[in-house]
Amino acid sequence: MGSLSFVGLGLCDEKGMSLYGLELARSADIVLIETYTNIMPSLNIRSLEALIGKEVKMVDRHYIEDGSHLLRTASEKDVALLVPGDPFIATTHVELRVRAERRGILVRVAHAPSIISVAPGVVGLQNYKFGRSATITFPDNYSEVPYDTIIQNRRAGLHTLLFLDLRAEEGRYMSVQEGIRLLMEMESRRGEGAVCPDTLMIGIARAGSPDQLVKGGRAEDLASLDFGPPPHSLIVPGRLHFMEAEALEVLARVDRSLLSKYVERV
Amino acid sequence: MGSLSFVGLGLCDEKGMSLYGLELARSADIVLIETYTNIMPSLNIRSLEALIGKEVKMVDRHYIEDGSHLLRTASEKDVALLVPGDPFIATTHVELRVRAERRGILVRVAHAPSIISVAPGVVGLQNYKFGRSATITFPDNYSEVPYDTIIQNRRAGLHTLLFLDLRAEEGRYMSVQEGIRLLMEMESRRGEGAVCPDTLMIGIARAGSPDQLVKGGRAEDLASLDFGPPPHSLIVPGRLHFMEAEALEVLARVDRSLLSKYVERV
Repeated sequence: MGSLSFVGLGLCDEKGMSLYGLELARSADIVLIETYTNIMPSLNIRSLEALIGKEVKMVDRHYIEDGSHLLRTASEKDVALLVPGDPFIATTHVELRVRAERRGILVRVAHAPSIISVAPGVVGLQNYKFGRSATITFPDNYSEVPYDTIIQNRRAGLHTLLFLDLRAEEGRYMSVQEGIRLLMEMESRRGEGAVCPDTLMIGIARAGSPDQLVKGGRAEDLASLDFGPPPHSLIVPGRLHFMEAEALEVLARVDRSLLSKYVERV
Repeated sequence: MGSLSFVGLGLCDEKGMSLYGLELARSADIVLIETYTNIMPSLNIRSLEALIGKEVKMVDRHYIEDGSHLLRTASEKDVALLVPGDPFIATTHVELRVRAERRGILVRVAHAPSIISVAPGVVGLQNYKFGRSATITFPDNYSEVPYDTIIQNRRAGLHTLLFLDLRAEEGRYMSVQEGIRLLMEMESRRGEGAVCPDTLMIGIARAGSPDQLVKGGRAEDLASLDFGPPPHSLIVPGRLHFMEAEALEVLARVDRSLLSKYVERV
């Protein structure tokens, strides 16, 4: 009897793995890793192998999405699959889990930090004031969902977390600059006032890493700022509690004058 | 010069801490832990001390919220504060961080899994289809926010994650049963059809623990089910993608007949 362990690696490097995750990886017969669903800025496979004490084999999108070899192996041996972030944010891992459980394969999970829970906290915004999130996609896969999402959330006073598209296999990662530029282009097409040069936005680079960069300000100003290496993400705040405004001033170095327009009058 | 390290412990026990978090705790002069912002079902302070190799001192709500002794200490020594879940989901830790940064204290952060990112994944629902979340509070702190949130999210086809109130100091934790009963009471007061006995809900107990329990079904049926020890949380799905329906069938053992009403027609 085999098993399949999903082990989250978190957001930065191999030390984002939990102690439980390390146990699962160490006790597995076979250790696989996929790095196409997200990017971990400082991951080093050699250090990972040294930590776990065995070979870590890289698998690609096709291997995971097809899944048949993986599931056959996990019916006989203990397989650990290491993945960036938390294991079940990517739909493809949920699908794999469902297939494994249908076959009666024992599934174990070591959760890890995800950008979804980390982003609100590192900028100091309250989690329950976020509406739905959306992804700004590359122009060849154009979608106005992020534009509509900002409008809907803002109408309810809510913050919006925007993921920025990535194609890890091609080494393409959308930057905060590019994300804002794409939102501005949607604005000129739609003209409904979701974003303007003065709109408060917060760019996040390498969330959860020691060299994380969090910087908020006017959209136009951020659009000319270099946030450095990927991954990046973007937050468009709704109405701010005064404690949130204070946090943004300190953690995202936003000018107090810009914040005052957003603070809820009690 | 001192420092303040926020170290998330995750959702279950001391092994939810990341390897980076363990490093921060081991290298600190003083290690504190608070356990009032959330409950970790299997945390053992003795095992935690053995792992870290030093005494772990429990501090209470007043100590954290007041913060003055903690910040004074962290201006001179390296202090690690261990917290349940991810460090910055609780507003009180964000406030502490802001105060520390204002004083020029070096802040380090080891993120960890949070119920916010774990809950959608373990039931197999897609993260970007969640609207805002809300907390069902105990009746002596009555609020209809969760009721309104379900209505607003469902109108947009979105899922709702509901946190269930807790008062760790009093050992009081709301159960899935109690949460559903309180929603039903709001329904009889408001009568807007947010929840009815047939509404699909998913109860989650001890998310992220090896003895995690995920079970979905009709609200009325779940309301008579014992989910065991805390913590619990509740999801009220909106419209379902067929892959989400399939995941709910396997991961939350929901009857296919109940799911079909919720699946989006493409």
